[in-house]
Amino acid sequence: MKRVHIFNAGPTVLPLEVLQEVQKDLVDYKGKGLSVMEMSHRSVEYQGIIDNAVASVKRLLNIGDDYEVLFLQGGASTQFYMIPLNFCPDGKVANYVDTGAWSAKAIKEAKNIGKDVHVAASSKDKDYTFIPKELSISENAAYVHITSNNTIRGTEYHIDPNIPADIPLIADMSSDIMSKPFDVKKYSLIYAGAQKNIGPAGTTLVIIKKDFLKTANINLPTMMAYKTHADKGSMFNTPPTFAIYVVGKVLKWIEDKGGLEGFAKINQEKASYLYNIFDSSDFYKGTVVKEDRSLMNIPFRLPTEELEKKFIAEATAKDMIGLKGHRSVGGCRASVYNSLPLESAKALSEFMVEFEKNNK
Amino acid sequence: MKRVHIFNAGPTVLPLEVLQEVQKDLVDYKGKGLSVMEMSHRSVEYQGIIDNAVASVKRLLNIGDDYEVLFLQGGASTQFYMIPLNFCPDGKVANYVDTGAWSAKAIKEAKNIGKDVHVAASSKDKDYTFIPKELSISENAAYVHITSNNTIRGTEYHIDPNIPADIPLIADMSSDIMSKPFDVKKYSLIYAGAQKNIGPAGTTLVIIKKDFLKTANINLPTMMAYKTHADKGSMFNTPPTFAIYVVGKVLKWIEDKGGLEGFAKINQEKASYLYNIFDSSDFYKGTVVKEDRSLMNIPFRLPTEELEKKFIAEATAKDMIGLKGHRSVGGCRASVYNSLPLESAKALSEFMVEFEKNNK
Repeated sequence: MKRVHIFNAGPTVLPLEVLQEVQKDLVDYKGKGLSVMEMSHRSVEYQGIIDNAVASVKRLLNIGDDYEVLFLQGGASTQFYMIPLNFCPDGKVANYVDTGAWSAKAIKEAKNIGKDVHVAASSKDKDYTFIPKELSISENAAYVHITSNNTIRGTEYHIDPNIPADIPLIADMSSDIMSKPFDVKKYSLIYAGAQKNIGPAGTTLVIIKKDFLKTANINLPTMMAYKTHADKGSMFNTPPTFAIYVVGKVLKWIEDKGGLEGFAKINQEKASYLYNIFDSSDFYKGTVVKEDRSLMNIPFRLPTEELEKKFIAEATAKDMIGLKGHRSVGGCRASVYNSLPLESAKALSEFMVEFEKNNK
Repeated sequence: MKRVHIFNAGPTVLPLEVLQEVQKDLVDYKGKGLSVMEMSHRSVEYQGIIDNAVASVKRLLNIGDDYEVLFLQGGASTQFYMIPLNFCPDGKVANYVDTGAWSAKAIKEAKNIGKDVHVAASSKDKDYTFIPKELSISENAAYVHITSNNTIRGTEYHIDPNIPADIPLIADMSSDIMSKPFDVKKYSLIYAGAQKNIGPAGTTLVIIKKDFLKTANINLPTMMAYKTHADKGSMFNTPPTFAIYVVGKVLKWIEDKGGLEGFAKINQEKASYLYNIFDSSDFYKGTVVKEDRSLMNIPFRLPTEELEKKFIAEATAKDMIGLKGHRSVGGCRASVYNSLPLESAKALSEFMVEFEKNNK
């Protein structure tokens, strides 16, 4: 069996152990005589699978029945629409922190449906190279929305933003959920496309404080109301059963391997392999201020675009894939999510040192 | 390896050959060193996978570049909302044929967003036991929407509805797409949740005539506009990559096993195993008029509810699962989609004969 080093921004690497278990059970799930893909979502067997996934989320984030844990469809892009639709009533103002393309898309959707939008802070003037710490929140704020980790730019909140306790905080955590401990209690709504840190593409984890959910507009298209999904345990309609099953297995793997505390340490170590190189070399340049560096997505530039092309080509030849920067910014980027083995980060750092030596 | 007979209404049975191939390639896809779940949706490899799935749809339905073939998320339930949103402008009337719970939900969503709705025909007064053939279409019809097969009630259109050529025809084909040949050219939009005839849950096949798509409202939430997805080949945001991959394999299997003509014959034969029993027994009663019987979902009643419970319990003990009727109607139901092997239908019919003998 061949196994490459996967640095994709998402969909991306999954734990090998999880893939092997999924493979083993693919045709005949634990002797039941059918695949998980063939199970009715209304079956006792499948209910157990989704219940286990929800329970893992609650254990990992240390939350109880004061939060709803949902598995929806449509990705973060659909959340960009659902959030203002559900939670920004007339007369209120949707506040956003703009830290890059994903925040900008969230802002665009809120404006698109006619909501009053206020940008409480932005790092746009410095090309999104940092996380703005000072917010200027509007009157009548419906909520403040942040993107906790910017996948494209490689910036990450390392401290929760400081906002008044009576203003709901909402976070797109697609690219750093479950990578480190954080205080969920500070958040009213968290969402994350699964395909970066917690599983394959096809489902979106949504965590909503029940008290906040009670304030939602409910006169909405059925599928766009969070209440619809909360009332039916993510089973108002057929959920993406197999994607949720794999997410459940990844979450269990995270629990077994040390939980969020454990992964915070490992992720720090993995990222250090690369950041240490930036800090001791003029050849590779990080694109982000030091204090806001993401532990998940590490963009960098080489002296010329030609060298970047050569770097990516040679890395690919050495079975290190997904190192091209996002098409909107160019350069290189290594995504080093939870499921990336330490050895992959190490292999990349060794290649980087060698490449510098040969091309300086 | 154990293998049960799967009569679920969906998610449901997949071809064993497909499951085995998916299993074989699960960890290391064709020697590439990664799982399909780990591939970037922007990779050349994955583009090939989705292109093949689209090409299979076009070959099977005998359509060309005059149609868009999309793989979306959110199930038919999201389509119920998107269709009137995109295609029923002010001043026009959304026409629906009401043939059961799924049509009713589609109607509800159109009303929900303030559209002018006209029910052009309904079989509600006869408990949805038939397909109404005579339609009374309103003035200024934006479209006529039908549910080509009613999964819960077991009715199916065997002849395309007769409507004027200048009125767009839209069909929810979730439970009979790819089960028989039909004239796609008559339809402006077709949609189908994958989890019945063409794959696992998690993606929705949408086929739109390009000329019709041009008439869509485009000032919409980004994810709710068909144009968004058509312009980006279903890749505006991360698609449900693995679900689409499996759908592609099932479609290829349908092509290899005789295409729609071939499956029409096999499906007729499978359904006959059960319908022949209804026609020669007073013990099992079909719930639908003969001419509108579905070849996909076959609901039936036994003399008493107690016998129905016993029937389902004994069938389950013999590894025939999913035979309980929908909770809204009770009784029994056998779903006999494309991927159900002939032997499963045969096994069920033999059990039915035996059960009748023992319980008459």
